[in-house]
Amino acid sequence: MAKDKVKPRILTGFMELLPEDQILFNKIYDTIREVYESFGFLPLDTPVIELSEVLLAKAGGETEKQIYRFTKGDNDLALRFDLTVPLARYVAQHSGQLTFPFKRYQMSKVYRGERPQKGRFREFYQCDIDIIGNEELDIAYDAEMPAVIYNVFRKLNFGKFTIRLNNRKVLNGFFESLGLENQISDILRNIDKLDKIGRDNVIEELEKLGIEKDKINSIIDFISISGTESEKISALRALNIDNEKFTEGVCELEKVTEYMKDFGIDEDYFTIDLTIARGLDYYTGTVYETVLDDYRSLGSVCSGGRYDNLTEYYTNTKLPGIGISIGLTRLFSQLKDAGIIKAERSSLVDCLVVPMGVDMSYVLKTAKAVRDAGLVTDVYYANKGMKQKMKYANKLGIPFVAVIGEDEVNANTASLKNMATGEQITVSIDNIGNEIKKQMGE
Amino acid sequence: MAKDKVKPRILTGFMELLPEDQILFNKIYDTIREVYESFGFLPLDTPVIELSEVLLAKAGGETEKQIYRFTKGDNDLALRFDLTVPLARYVAQHSGQLTFPFKRYQMSKVYRGERPQKGRFREFYQCDIDIIGNEELDIAYDAEMPAVIYNVFRKLNFGKFTIRLNNRKVLNGFFESLGLENQISDILRNIDKLDKIGRDNVIEELEKLGIEKDKINSIIDFISISGTESEKISALRALNIDNEKFTEGVCELEKVTEYMKDFGIDEDYFTIDLTIARGLDYYTGTVYETVLDDYRSLGSVCSGGRYDNLTEYYTNTKLPGIGISIGLTRLFSQLKDAGIIKAERSSLVDCLVVPMGVDMSYVLKTAKAVRDAGLVTDVYYANKGMKQKMKYANKLGIPFVAVIGEDEVNANTASLKNMATGEQITVSIDNIGNEIKKQMGE
Repeated sequence: MAKDKVKPRILTGFMELLPEDQILFNKIYDTIREVYESFGFLPLDTPVIELSEVLLAKAGGETEKQIYRFTKGDNDLALRFDLTVPLARYVAQHSGQLTFPFKRYQMSKVYRGERPQKGRFREFYQCDIDIIGNEELDIAYDAEMPAVIYNVFRKLNFGKFTIRLNNRKVLNGFFESLGLENQISDILRNIDKLDKIGRDNVIEELEKLGIEKDKINSIIDFISISGTESEKISALRALNIDNEKFTEGVCELEKVTEYMKDFGIDEDYFTIDLTIARGLDYYTGTVYETVLDDYRSLGSVCSGGRYDNLTEYYTNTKLPGIGISIGLTRLFSQLKDAGIIKAERSSLVDCLVVPMGVDMSYVLKTAKAVRDAGLVTDVYYANKGMKQKMKYANKLGIPFVAVIGEDEVNANTASLKNMATGEQITVSIDNIGNEIKKQMGE
Repeated sequence: MAKDKVKPRILTGFMELLPEDQILFNKIYDTIREVYESFGFLPLDTPVIELSEVLLAKAGGETEKQIYRFTKGDNDLALRFDLTVPLARYVAQHSGQLTFPFKRYQMSKVYRGERPQKGRFREFYQCDIDIIGNEELDIAYDAEMPAVIYNVFRKLNFGKFTIRLNNRKVLNGFFESLGLENQISDILRNIDKLDKIGRDNVIEELEKLGIEKDKINSIIDFISISGTESEKISALRALNIDNEKFTEGVCELEKVTEYMKDFGIDEDYFTIDLTIARGLDYYTGTVYETVLDDYRSLGSVCSGGRYDNLTEYYTNTKLPGIGISIGLTRLFSQLKDAGIIKAERSSLVDCLVVPMGVDMSYVLKTAKAVRDAGLVTDVYYANKGMKQKMKYANKLGIPFVAVIGEDEVNANTASLKNMATGEQITVSIDNIGNEIKKQMGE
């Protein structure tokens, strides 16, 4: 052939999985989807490509630099870089046709042309839920979000985790009361390093910001509040801060943690953490982070919070909302690297039907009987030896093999082998599906 | 606010659905996925963005013009325009790590910057399955493909359909025997119009191509072959065509239709159609089309066939395959327009818990009990009147409402209303999940 071959490859920063890992990925994806749906969130699927004018109505700075943006015909286009902007556009565009509060999930790929580095992807799944209210949105939803997080991560079974929550009104009110409202982001960036650099270094950094000694002491006292959730609430009240926002925030925090218990969240799985702020310009009330206790270095695996106005770039209607997001591609990659999850099967097949030189008609009817029983079924058609066929089933981790030889055809049976136990029994075709399900249940 | 608002909108040619339609779409998507998996197809998820050099190794002409292609940094990039090229690239790239025959499904969006017109989309879902063999691939797979189609469309329940199949060896062998191998595509294009323009006009068109009268008669005899599938096979054999390819093709056709019956495909649902060719340069054996009997004008809703070599642009290894594709976005849009499918629910919620001025703690525990029973559950938190809350449930098509007032809290019960029958009963919280499931089953 004269034509040169093209080397088959993908771009760096894009995740593509082998079947065994894709099966594992999909299991996680499906579990998240199932929990999201169990709380009544509605599916949404927005276009990957949008008009740049619409998608970048808000963006700027770092985000804009990362965008995949291009023209086609007369159109200035961009690939979505998150699922929040498309949600805002969707809600603004269809507000007349939606019922509020509008609860939606979207679990789709987004695109950021970052310089690729370990654990960073240019194409990655975000698994988002948001609840959007019309003008108002009950505080109970602030507890529903962590209830969803709790159910997702309990089901995913990645080990013990902690949902950390805070309230931006508490933070903002506190710093306002110190007259430090213009330095909040600098202060919080230093507080964030507490675990890493220790208290003394944080104090030093705060001094460098020109903050007075007594205010630094107040800040340190504030972030050192500890105890049970109700003790923290009491300690916040005991600060006697005369700021309406602060008081409101403390009330919200109290109510949310109470509701969280009513939602069935085990108290060991959440804590008020006064150092959490999340995106500074965006969130206005309750904020969340989630850490896997044994793998804190992974950072937050699920974050979010409440915001005042989702659609301000598109409409004048005030639509407050609350949402959380799981960056699934990154999480999957981290969990795999850390050995927390690993592929178990290279196949979805429950039963492989293996013909040994017999008429295909009987073989296909056997396969149909197994499949009709609700089991994933495949047939090994190729004319190979028994040993090779068993090796194939073993390699893929297929749990059952139904061997069909002359004897089986004559007796209207199959020889069913349980690959885990090695046990082999003869079953009638009418009963093979039930027999497999029985053995699977054991 | 000084800043002008951006008009929220999406590009033409992109499908975006309201929740009720998205629920319907997902139901169809999930059904297709479930059937694909039941035959042991493995999930695959390739990047939307690939290197142009890789993605366009084969492409040219019309396809290339439709591509979304752009640069980012030093990279010449393109959005995938189908799922077959990414599959070829994937198999060539990972052939050493895959087990053959490799059965994969991919149900993802692809991109074509066509001039948008009714029923044509620039972003659309393709739902593909392919089976790739290493050097060889058993003929039984040619019958498995229509078995999958049969199971998908029986489950989807869009009404009676017919899988039309043919074999390219039969076609090519036949036209070779007439010495017309160089005019096959012109001839087939005219034959394709048989239904529309009638036999006489087809003959006239074939004459215009300069084909001799006796050959035209042979062609007409060939495409007029009718009867049962075995009668058609006999009639093909009776043509006594001395061409090896033709003979092989007829044998394959015979075997495939026999196997199809063994796969449990009702004979009313398939037919040999000697006028079907599909993509002329691509397919080399069995080819398929699927039409909905009552909506033939929709064209083929699922097509595919066998090809000799998937990866020729990337490797020298010969990897024959067979595959089918459902263009789900277009199909969904057509079925909806034709009134064949329609949205049934605006919500996934099975039971809405409605508090009437009571403590939230009890309400949330009730919701948890319903959710823990495996039912999709939501709570109406907003402080509205009973009438408005019922109206909300009605509007969304939620089948059950659990009302919680003071009496219910005191008695540890809920008032469960079946919205379809209007019946209302008092149930204990421990039993509410089972009660709903019981009523749902009725």
